[in-house]
Amino acid sequence: MMNTPLTLIQKLERAEKYFSRKQVISRTGEKIHRLTYKDVGKRTRALSSGLARLGVQKGDRVATLAWNHHRHLEAYFAVPCMGAVLHMANFRLSAEHLVYILNHAEDKVLLIDDSIVPIVEQIQDQLETVEAYVVMTDAKELPETTLSPVYSYEDIVMKGDPNYQYEDQFDENQPAAMCYTSATTGKPKGVVYTHRGLVLHSMALGLSDTLGLSESDVLMPVVPMFHVNAWGLPFACTWFGTTQVLPGPMFTPKLLAELIESEKVTLTAGVPTIWLGLMNEFEQNEYDTSTLRGIVCGGSAAPRGLIRAFESKYNIPFLHAYGLTETTPVVTAARLKSYQMDLPEEERLDIRSKQGIVVPGLEVKVINDSGEVKPDGQEMGELLVRGPWIANEYYKDERSKDAFRDGWLHTGDIATIDTEGNIKLVDRTKDLVKSGGEWISSVDLENFLMAHEGVFEAAVIAVPHPKWVERPVGCVVLKADYKNSVTREELLTYLGTQFPKWWIPDDIVFLDEIPKTSVGKFLKRSLREQLKDHLVEKA
Amino acid sequence: MMNTPLTLIQKLERAEKYFSRKQVISRTGEKIHRLTYKDVGKRTRALSSGLARLGVQKGDRVATLAWNHHRHLEAYFAVPCMGAVLHMANFRLSAEHLVYILNHAEDKVLLIDDSIVPIVEQIQDQLETVEAYVVMTDAKELPETTLSPVYSYEDIVMKGDPNYQYEDQFDENQPAAMCYTSATTGKPKGVVYTHRGLVLHSMALGLSDTLGLSESDVLMPVVPMFHVNAWGLPFACTWFGTTQVLPGPMFTPKLLAELIESEKVTLTAGVPTIWLGLMNEFEQNEYDTSTLRGIVCGGSAAPRGLIRAFESKYNIPFLHAYGLTETTPVVTAARLKSYQMDLPEEERLDIRSKQGIVVPGLEVKVINDSGEVKPDGQEMGELLVRGPWIANEYYKDERSKDAFRDGWLHTGDIATIDTEGNIKLVDRTKDLVKSGGEWISSVDLENFLMAHEGVFEAAVIAVPHPKWVERPVGCVVLKADYKNSVTREELLTYLGTQFPKWWIPDDIVFLDEIPKTSVGKFLKRSLREQLKDHLVEKA
Repeated sequence: MMNTPLTLIQKLERAEKYFSRKQVISRTGEKIHRLTYKDVGKRTRALSSGLARLGVQKGDRVATLAWNHHRHLEAYFAVPCMGAVLHMANFRLSAEHLVYILNHAEDKVLLIDDSIVPIVEQIQDQLETVEAYVVMTDAKELPETTLSPVYSYEDIVMKGDPNYQYEDQFDENQPAAMCYTSATTGKPKGVVYTHRGLVLHSMALGLSDTLGLSESDVLMPVVPMFHVNAWGLPFACTWFGTTQVLPGPMFTPKLLAELIESEKVTLTAGVPTIWLGLMNEFEQNEYDTSTLRGIVCGGSAAPRGLIRAFESKYNIPFLHAYGLTETTPVVTAARLKSYQMDLPEEERLDIRSKQGIVVPGLEVKVINDSGEVKPDGQEMGELLVRGPWIANEYYKDERSKDAFRDGWLHTGDIATIDTEGNIKLVDRTKDLVKSGGEWISSVDLENFLMAHEGVFEAAVIAVPHPKWVERPVGCVVLKADYKNSVTREELLTYLGTQFPKWWIPDDIVFLDEIPKTSVGKFLKRSLREQLKDHLVEKA
Repeated sequence: MMNTPLTLIQKLERAEKYFSRKQVISRTGEKIHRLTYKDVGKRTRALSSGLARLGVQKGDRVATLAWNHHRHLEAYFAVPCMGAVLHMANFRLSAEHLVYILNHAEDKVLLIDDSIVPIVEQIQDQLETVEAYVVMTDAKELPETTLSPVYSYEDIVMKGDPNYQYEDQFDENQPAAMCYTSATTGKPKGVVYTHRGLVLHSMALGLSDTLGLSESDVLMPVVPMFHVNAWGLPFACTWFGTTQVLPGPMFTPKLLAELIESEKVTLTAGVPTIWLGLMNEFEQNEYDTSTLRGIVCGGSAAPRGLIRAFESKYNIPFLHAYGLTETTPVVTAARLKSYQMDLPEEERLDIRSKQGIVVPGLEVKVINDSGEVKPDGQEMGELLVRGPWIANEYYKDERSKDAFRDGWLHTGDIATIDTEGNIKLVDRTKDLVKSGGEWISSVDLENFLMAHEGVFEAAVIAVPHPKWVERPVGCVVLKADYKNSVTREELLTYLGTQFPKWWIPDDIVFLDEIPKTSVGKFLKRSLREQLKDHLVEKA
């Protein structure tokens, strides 16, 4: 067979050649831009030529600090296709961590949203390798800034060569992109994605039993483009000619609902907190969501009640998926098998609430001290993953040896696996509650709490306990209408209907909001810090 | 990213682990076998261990001479997974060619259907490298034979190790399978498929806009398993947990129709002649085909009338695809784009009658003496293909340099390409009619002839002409009910409604049957031979 490499260039060219009329719809602030893939192709090539003029060479890192919009999509292709490496930087990190990742990646050029310029201004003195700042606006909208040298994105594109040619026969294992992930302790850890990994991951996304992405889809990625390749969706959509709807900065649930209706979105993807917000919006206002064939949910386990609500109230299939920054990210997708279609609703929901089976191309196993766990859906162990789009190290980081061992990624996720091969996450290693030597799954407790009609969000954390070492405590945000009617005792009794007595949290704490990470996951570390003396006082 | 290789072993293991209850339904003569993927996995491993005991080592070639059934499926995995190379041999070749390919591939063991034993007996004295013959039956059904040493397949499987472990971390560019393709002149030419190529090809088949193969599908490959990996379907179906219905030896249209109904087939694949036969059967007898979501048609261009008939009369979508032995084989698939769905029926049929756009992962171009042809759907040129599942040579064959040049496969197919990127085959280089220096597409004439209500099959060939060098002649098989009513003049007048005068064949010859190749394509070479003096006599 020919040794033609798997590269992102082929994806861009396929969109340019065969889907030149298809659209990318992009919101930047108040403005909605409508570009064809033909436009995107020309602008992407012009951007590459402009970056080359700024001194970007093969292997150099170029960072983006930006929301989901067409310019970010162009950078997703322009940087890797010219042989450089796209570093999608999470601008919501602490200043200390942001400085660390930009210096650690040795970024040469930064592409920055205008709204993010102030963040970069505050750290610019600490940036060691940056040679140019590009603000992702028109020349006339370029804000006053202390960043220097500074360029306008549109100016670079306008002066660039829309026919810039890429060298397309290079080693497919060449780095294309990178992303940092927060660590439990210490600095963020970098993961490098190769062209090969990103191409194979896109293929897996396109398969019928993963997302079944088609040219006829209209996909709105709500998952940020500064986070794990936006789950690989921008790459896959471009390749398959799928229409993309990019919701831009600072979107609200209302804005997402409006885009779904107006752009006839067929598929959207994001973390559970986004869908909790959208469900809330759907309950307040009416939208036509009839085109929506699925909501893809990852990042954290989705509450069972949320899955049920979208499906039964709004007839929108909810697709659970699982992955990590280290895994590009998609590892599993939850689908009913053909012979499970006629099971009773609750049994089907049981299956769909799990993370699903591993996608074609990867391998998983769940191990504990005694080897691979029994596939009974009960025995817990750490989830290990292997395959061509799984990282084999953290970028220049000694912590690599902890996670990457014996040819497998040790995910730090505690899971069970059932007879059908469905993985179910029961916790992060670091979030498990270990009470009296036994594991309690915080995720199971949270999901059951969030299935309660009065509960908007819930997180369960471990707090130190003099006798049991750790005990669970529930942190609950009530829905507005239930603020004064649902009590601590009611929720504890409710949990008692489902779980053994020793699993029941020792307390329920009502909060106005669950603190979240920059990508919308529950920030349990912060809750643990806040409540670290909670039980000791009571004991 | 990890350097885990793409191998067929992962596919088998995925079926064993996650689809152990799903079925392979296999017809061998009068018997219908129902095996689960768990059974298939154990039997495959047992077969590998048995072949190892027969002396098969890594890199050795093992040939199959067999129809589509579960034992052939097991061999599809058992041979490559143990590191050997599966040579799917076309037992319908002439004895001379069959001897040539078995010797040229240096096959060590032959796996042979009982019905094919007599063919092999006649050539066994000429086989230079074969060390063992395995007849694909139970021990008690082993026919009396002069082949020696001879074994029964079931005996080998029974005595083999169902837990045989494969070494799974080898170079993905290792050969997995091979197949010979007939040449215009001379001996057949061998194509070697690597593990990498077969895995990537399966991924492309699974994509929504190619076949969208799912676990929930029930696929019946009618395309023979001795021909181009049965279009890669056995590999892809096993990976995705798709139910397979293997129709076995010497099937009839009636048998296929019955299997579609009884096994609730959702997707089936084969060459146009199969579907002409099936259409005929549907017209005679009634079947429930409501589960069928598509008929995949490749090998030759399908007549427009056939596509229309399946869709309008039976509501079965007809999916045109294109490929060659050298391309694993799938290169293009014909799908309407989302914005073409509302076109008038005839325009949609125009698009669907083409071969479609190139699948993700491959690149195509159409060139003539002046470079790439205009994408206007009119200008003709030779189709070139490049990508990771395209052969880069013929196996130990000096003819490689003709077809593989400048990094591209020169297909020998003459095609046009339209503004949407749809390839349309107008002819094989060798079948084109070149009249007075101008090209006439035999395929266009044939397809229009076959759209006539009275025509069952039609082939148009070039015959020598003293003035025009070549002129077209139509060879037509009429449907039984039209045998005495449709005349030569009527068909010529009918062609005149569609084509310029100089395209109209100089004669129509009525035949009882169009001779076909061993894989069901029109054997134009034989017609040309038969009719080589036809026009000269008339001139």
